[in-house]
Amino acid sequence: MPASVRVLGVDPGLTRCGVGVVDVERRTPTLVHVEVLRSDADEAIELRLLRIARGVEAAIDAHRPDAIALERVFAQANLRSVMGVAQISGIVLRAAAERELPVALLTPSEVKAAVTGYGAADKRQVGEMVRRLLRLEAAPKPADAADALAIAIAEGWRTRAPRAEHSTPAQRAWAAAESAARARR
Amino acid sequence: MPASVRVLGVDPGLTRCGVGVVDVERRTPTLVHVEVLRSDADEAIELRLLRIARGVEAAIDAHRPDAIALERVFAQANLRSVMGVAQISGIVLRAAAERELPVALLTPSEVKAAVTGYGAADKRQVGEMVRRLLRLEAAPKPADAADALAIAIAEGWRTRAPRAEHSTPAQRAWAAAESAARARR
Repeated sequence: MPASVRVLGVDPGLTRCGVGVVDVERRTPTLVHVEVLRSDADEAIELRLLRIARGVEAAIDAHRPDAIALERVFAQANLRSVMGVAQISGIVLRAAAERELPVALLTPSEVKAAVTGYGAADKRQVGEMVRRLLRLEAAPKPADAADALAIAIAEGWRTRAPRAEHSTPAQRAWAAAESAARARR
Repeated sequence: MPASVRVLGVDPGLTRCGVGVVDVERRTPTLVHVEVLRSDADEAIELRLLRIARGVEAAIDAHRPDAIALERVFAQANLRSVMGVAQISGIVLRAAAERELPVALLTPSEVKAAVTGYGAADKRQVGEMVRRLLRLEAAPKPADAADALAIAIAEGWRTRAPRAEHSTPAQRAWAAAESAARARR
């Protein structure tokens, strides 16, 4: 197993799309890059998608991750926003396949459980854990930036062998939840 | 206004994605190309999206349409299938924007009203009208192929000035429905 894995996480969205890149060495994630791509609701949908697509692809090509992880789309209250999220996801999945990069789709609760130990954690808790895990002075803002990093960290951990002796309570909770989820499959 | 307009219509889908190209001269559509791209449900989602994306883009680049039209995604019973449709739509919209081609999103009932005069027409009626309008011996099969052509024809008509003296009852019904819809906006 190589010493570290680089994961690019995407919190897909049409108005704000979080992109975060981390290197995970054993259980230690390190910030490589974070940005929030934006498009204007007044613009035509196809131009918005192109703008976000080009931003994500530029980040992939600049940081050359070993894997891409993105939030799995769910039915939510707002159908219009789900459609935008699904459209961006499709574009990111295709960009990964084109570059022969492995892709993981994580649910929001998997990501929250991974970084905070609690699947129903709120935005503030996720931001705070991302800040601590990456040894930053402040939580990345807006929430889309912190979410993208949380996705990347969760996937980085998922693909590395957990080292129980060094793990935090949150990481142990995640390992247990992950084993339970695997057992159910 | 140029003598004719070439429209590429897409009936987006992950398992079967219809692509149809027509030239519309005044009110007369002529078949240029039709195909149904497929991907296997056993394949990884990102590979399925890449396969369909490459097929649609190859058709665009081979036939060089003046415009692209696709079916607008709606909430349907099957959320998983809606997600696939939205993901493909995102990819097609982006491909259009990248090529600076105008895009139209048509609802299924707009397309049905345009080609059959009846917004709740069934698949068979749409197929039969596409066959007649394009002067084909048989309706294009599967339905995704006929639907893609219907979308392209509807958009071709929408962008051309309707010529009342040559129009069919279906075309007059469409023109009336379209004026009414415009008046409501």
